[in-house]
Amino acid sequence: MQNTRAASFRLYHFPLSPFSRKVRLSLAEKRIEVELVEERYWEPDHDFLRRNPAGKIPVLKVGNRHLAESAAICEYLEEIEPEPPLLPQSAEARYEVRRLVGWFDDKFYHEVTSKLLGERVHKKVMGGGYPDSANVKAGARAIKFHIDYMAWLLDQRRWLAGNELSLADFAAAAQLSCLDYISDVDWNRSETVKDWYAKIKSRPAFRSILADQLPGFPQPAHYADLDF
Amino acid sequence: MQNTRAASFRLYHFPLSPFSRKVRLSLAEKRIEVELVEERYWEPDHDFLRRNPAGKIPVLKVGNRHLAESAAICEYLEEIEPEPPLLPQSAEARYEVRRLVGWFDDKFYHEVTSKLLGERVHKKVMGGGYPDSANVKAGARAIKFHIDYMAWLLDQRRWLAGNELSLADFAAAAQLSCLDYISDVDWNRSETVKDWYAKIKSRPAFRSILADQLPGFPQPAHYADLDF
Repeated sequence: MQNTRAASFRLYHFPLSPFSRKVRLSLAEKRIEVELVEERYWEPDHDFLRRNPAGKIPVLKVGNRHLAESAAICEYLEEIEPEPPLLPQSAEARYEVRRLVGWFDDKFYHEVTSKLLGERVHKKVMGGGYPDSANVKAGARAIKFHIDYMAWLLDQRRWLAGNELSLADFAAAAQLSCLDYISDVDWNRSETVKDWYAKIKSRPAFRSILADQLPGFPQPAHYADLDF
Repeated sequence: MQNTRAASFRLYHFPLSPFSRKVRLSLAEKRIEVELVEERYWEPDHDFLRRNPAGKIPVLKVGNRHLAESAAICEYLEEIEPEPPLLPQSAEARYEVRRLVGWFDDKFYHEVTSKLLGERVHKKVMGGGYPDSANVKAGARAIKFHIDYMAWLLDQRRWLAGNELSLADFAAAAQLSCLDYISDVDWNRSETVKDWYAKIKSRPAFRSILADQLPGFPQPAHYADLDF
């Protein structure tokens, strides 16, 4: 363990990438120091492709190894640094965390984040033209269903996957915080979900996320406000 | 452990769903008996949605619980029934398995399977009309890159993620076997990949996959042939 911790960690990321944010939150919660390197991943150069044949971010450099796939990275961090735990003890409870990580990484991302953030921000940053309004509308419609689902879960539990904070909360907060940066989350839809986000936002692990800035997209006032 | 094993397992699946196949392979390798129930998941009725709010297959019923998200299900099976292991011991080796599971579940599926199987089979079964030839072409192009990547990995290792069979091999074989059913895999592209598939195809866990039949899509002769 000591050896791994002593190794230098470097994360190639992009500020408004939800998958980078999920890994950043895990690293910060476990107090693993990491050097952040911003990667314009849509302009893959030879070097970046060598680090990750999938051409995606985040990529975590641990010693001489380059780790890709955010879900696999988070499981790895949990195994090399179990404290504080982001996965519970029982197989049933761990299943529920992983189910929800999959829900937010896959379903929420494709139905909401890629449609809103993808159209409004990534297209502009990558020089892909104007947002497709059909996609934006579909994303704006879908986020309501997801917030209602979160509210339903949080009516039964303190955190999304159970009574302890877990990777599921970070997976969800990673997506929502990116959308909140472009003011695409209607926090008035659910008091329960807003309370959950206020709790997670005030954690020390969230500080670097709240400090993110993207040129051309000024941070809205409520974004870093803990009392939003 | 005994309690869980004693509970009845039922899997709601679809024969040519790669994610269902991945779970079926894990169950069979671990010799967990399961009742298979075919689910026409694109015609969601109330009952199926109650089992899985994401409206997806596979769904594994364990006792009174309904488990969704194939990656989370496979990790759960590994925890309740560790023998034979489908994840190795060290954190680094486990990371590599999970990275590749993510690669096949996400990248391979979206770039290849959804484009070939989605257009040629699911569209017809679901009454969605004719295949989109641009998608079919994109899928046929992408599978070459993926087979080359697998060949590159298998030049260095006995199995995809290392020297032991793992979930990564099942994730890959689940996708490829669905495509092989519609004769969309060019096994002549790589002798190494063909040898790997022959090894995995001859495992007892693969038998039920080779027996699959989909009305309207007769099984090609090579599909179940161990000497293809």
